[in-house]
Order: sequence, then C-alpha cells, then structure tokens
Amino acid sequence: MVYIGIDLGGTSVKVGLVDENGKILAKESCPTLVERGAEPVINDMANLSLKVIEKAGYTLDDVKAIGIGLPGIQDPRTGRVPFCTNLRWFDVDVIGVMKKIIDKPIFIGNDATVAGLAESVAGVSAGVSHSVFLTLGTGVGGGVVIDGKVWSGVNGVGSELGHMITVLDGEECTCGNKGCWERYASATAIIRMGRAAAKDHPECAIYKEVNGDLDLVTAKTVIDAAKAGDEIAVKVFDNYVYHLCAGLVNIINFMDPEVIVLGGGVSHAGQFLLDAIRAKLPSMIFYKTMPYARIELAVLGNDAGIIGAAMLGK
Amino acid sequence: MVYIGIDLGGTSVKVGLVDENGKILAKESCPTLVERGAEPVINDMANLSLKVIEKAGYTLDDVKAIGIGLPGIQDPRTGRVPFCTNLRWFDVDVIGVMKKIIDKPIFIGNDATVAGLAESVAGVSAGVSHSVFLTLGTGVGGGVVIDGKVWSGVNGVGSELGHMITVLDGEECTCGNKGCWERYASATAIIRMGRAAAKDHPECAIYKEVNGDLDLVTAKTVIDAAKAGDEIAVKVFDNYVYHLCAGLVNIINFMDPEVIVLGGGVSHAGQFLLDAIRAKLPSMIFYKTMPYARIELAVLGNDAGIIGAAMLGK
Repeated sequence: MVYIGIDLGGTSVKVGLVDENGKILAKESCPTLVERGAEPVINDMANLSLKVIEKAGYTLDDVKAIGIGLPGIQDPRTGRVPFCTNLRWFDVDVIGVMKKIIDKPIFIGNDATVAGLAESVAGVSAGVSHSVFLTLGTGVGGGVVIDGKVWSGVNGVGSELGHMITVLDGEECTCGNKGCWERYASATAIIRMGRAAAKDHPECAIYKEVNGDLDLVTAKTVIDAAKAGDEIAVKVFDNYVYHLCAGLVNIINFMDPEVIVLGGGVSHAGQFLLDAIRAKLPSMIFYKTMPYARIELAVLGNDAGIIGAAMLGK
Repeated sequence: MVYIGIDLGGTSVKVGLVDENGKILAKESCPTLVERGAEPVINDMANLSLKVIEKAGYTLDDVKAIGIGLPGIQDPRTGRVPFCTNLRWFDVDVIGVMKKIIDKPIFIGNDATVAGLAESVAGVSAGVSHSVFLTLGTGVGGGVVIDGKVWSGVNGVGSELGHMITVLDGEECTCGNKGCWERYASATAIIRMGRAAAKDHPECAIYKEVNGDLDLVTAKTVIDAAKAGDEIAVKVFDNYVYHLCAGLVNIINFMDPEVIVLGGGVSHAGQFLLDAIRAKLPSMIFYKTMPYARIELAVLGNDAGIIGAAMLGK
C-alpha cells in the first residue's frame, strides 16, 4: 500500500505519494493563495493527490490513507480544524470537503508534529519509539512521538512545546503569556538578542555585517559572527543556547524521550549548535549519572512535511 | 489474583494486599529505620508481604506480582535502584534481595508516580487513560500516566515535573539549576514567600498567628490567613497560584492530559485552592476556546502509595 502526504503551508501546498518506509514516489505542489479561502485550497489538495498517484503509476485502490500536516490543530471530538491561523481558517471541515473528491481515510496533524513523525520513520530518529521534534524557526514548534505514534493530547492541544513557560514574567508572547520558551529559543529570539547586543556594541561583528542597519540582522548573521569568534556574538549565542537547554531539560525531566530532534531555521547552524548544546546541557540535567536523550539535527529538510503527513495513516 | 503494594518512605514501610480494583484487603507497617542500611529494610518489606497475605486469608499462589513505590527511580537497563536519596540508598539491587524471600515478579516505581497510578485506578482519575499527578509537598513530585500505565521515560528519569524550569535564573534549587517549578509551587515555596511577606508586614495575619516567630510559619498558616481574607496572605497565595498555574500550563501545552490531580500537603487547602486555580488558569491557556485538562484534588490520601505500587504489577 502507498500513502498520500500533504504539507499545507501559508505559501504552498505540497503533495506526495509515499511508500510505507517513508520514501517519496512522486510529488507535486501549487501556491496556497490563502486569500481564496479554504475550499479551493482543499480542492487543490485533493486534485494534486490524484495527480501524484497517476504520476507514480499507481491507482486510488493502492492508496491506504491520506495524511495532512497543517499549521494548526484538529479537534479530536469533531474531526474539524478549529484553528489554522496563518491560513485564516477557523472551524473548517477539511475532511468533509476533501472526501467529496477522494473517499479515503483522512488524518490531520500539526505541521511540527508530522515533521517529528517523519524523522522517526525515515529520518534521524528512525526506529526510535519515543522522540520529541522541535522546529526552531519564527516560533518553536513541537512534535511528540510516543510508541511510534504522534501525540497530540486528549483534546488535540498538546505538543505546543514552544509555549512552555521557562521565564515567567519574561518577554511577552503572542499567546498572551509572558516568558514562553519560544520567546527565547526561536530564530526570532536570536534576532532580537542579536539586535539588542549590536545596538549596545557597534564594534561587534553583527553590527559591522549589516553596516549598522539592525533591521538586516538575521539569526544567521548572529550565528556566523559567533562561529567567527566575535565576542559579543558568542555571548548572544551562548545565552540563546542556555535558554534552549532550559526547555530541553524540561522535555527530558517530563518525558525522558530517547531522542530530541532539532529542525527549523536555527538547526542549520549544524554541528556548531549541537556542540554548544552538548557542552551546556549535562550541567543542567537532573540525574547527572543517568543516560538521557540524545540531541540530534533533523535530516529530512523540506520533505519532512510530506513524509510525516503520509505516515499519519500508517 | 491479588497484588502486594509496598510504600517505602523515609519514616515507615507500609505494605498492603490489594485486589485488582485497587481495594486494600489487609495492611501492615513498620518503621524504616534508615540507618540500618538497605538489606534489613528490604527483608522487612518481604516479611510484611508474607504477613498481609496470611492476614487477608490468601496464599502466595494468589499473588500475581509485587510493586514497590519509593522516593527514587529504577534504572530500566539493570532493574536496580541507582538513587533513593532520602534513604541513602545508592545502586541497590532491591529486586535481587527481595526475591531471596519471595520469588514473584517485582516492579518498582517512583512514589509520586505510583500515587498517580493509584488515583487513575481507584481515585479521582479512575478510568482516565491519560493523567498527571502532582504532589505539592516539600518539593513537587510528578506522576505521568499514559494509556493507563505509568510513564517513567526511556531512561527512567522522566516525570520529574517539579524540576521543569519555569523561572530561569530564579530561586536556587537542590538540583543545581535555578528556577525549577518546585521552588515556587511546593509547600516549601508558600512557607518561604509567607515568611518574607510577614517579615515586611508585621501587621499581617501570618505574623500575628506565629507571634512574630517566623520559623513557625507553615503552608497552612499562610493558606488559613488567605482563607480568612488577610490582604498580605491573599497576595502571597495568589502569587503561589500564579506560579502553580505556570507549571500546569506547561503540562497542558506539552501532554494535554485528561486530568491533572493535585496531591500532597498543599492540596489539603481543598476547594479554596481549586477555586483559585480554576479562576486563574483559563487566562493562561494557549487554545482559549478548546477544552483542556480538568484540575482535581487527590482522594486516596495515605493509601495511594500502597494501591499504586500494587497496580504496577497489573
């Protein structure tokens, strides 16, 4: 049997036909065009599904299920999507609309969650039963895999790891609380901390790299300057890693998974990031002499969304 | 079949014979006498087990398994107990010693974890598959139940919920980190905050209750003064509840369980505590319009340790 995996984002809809080992057999995509509203987007998702089946030389009978990863959640009581904020979708019957075109079992998961599932099927955590996946991007997304299955909680509101509070009364978060982890562990946080440091230290490499135009500072600017050994950038990066480790410790002290996988923009810092985490984390671990989760970098990149969505139906 | 449940603490060893519904059929106890070292204590555990079987009119053949709840963890690789700090046990082969006297399957769990299991079998969360139990005492202990089974993690170091960091760089914790949740959500935290407030406000009810001897302030002193409406005590209690809710939000945003059960000394504040949590928590929840975990008080009290330990073998 084969599986359809759909990676629905604010920019594009990506659809793939995937085998049971997580290998993509064919893929197609189209722009999302959010302003169209939900139904035309869902129709495109269905039609691209039919297209990839044909492209790979299969028929609808070969397809066991369809999985959709989206920047929102599914309400387990109704099967509907109550929120998909980036797409401006509220209470959308994604499955109902889709089934008018393709009548197959349809599963829905959060985008970070399905990316985590992908890594646990065909990526760096392949074969691992219990893992946590993190996207370190604009925010921090979380994917929790328990016993090889995605864990979205009893009400579908779990695995929002970026909204663990690690600095109560700290930076204001979009969620209304103050001090959520993602305010300190996202790419956005590196940028904020990098800009503040560069403003105070015009002699630093971050400031020089953007010729004083601090709006141009990206996470990469800060990380590259830290890699090059710039003292101020190293301080910013070390502080970022400290905050990142606080949340990793929380994950370990709560769930004690086998692997924690880092994805998203910041993970492109690669070995430099891993080395810094692996140097800092041991001092913060509760049971100092016991083994704890391996920290690894995601390997599937952009295909994780398609693969993980497809694996929802496995 | 029936089960032996052993609640091993720093003060006493309590042993019960328990049926499959979590009902205690007979119980016995003896002082732990920590200074004896591990082996005599384990021998007492085994002998009391034989005694409760006889007392309840059963034979060893009726016993399916023995469960032990202790203030430490089990290493899942070796089956041994690497730490049981209050008892000054390090790397003890509890199962090996016990089996010399009773050759039955033996399971070991953390004391907070088994108390959570007890509540999910025979207490307030009975019949609930996914729950979190918290002991709000000297520290904050955590018990995670997933799919009706205790979750101690891949390496046995999970469910240490009191050591989630909620106030990074905050109060120093015994674990070496700063700002662990238990520094703000335990009975110890109420006492610390109550003493500090009373020192600054000798006109408050907390100060008056102890005639200015702040060493006498307990969590109950503060909570009773808050219940009576004393302005300073209410402020301390509200701040405590705020910190408690920060950790509850983290649990909800991570695991999204069906129920979170509050046990331990602070939970004796009862409905007053529940009302305060239920008033504060909704404003801190991420998905404001979705259902989330019920917050409930533990009901099993001192028997939870025996019942939960017994249920480890079910």
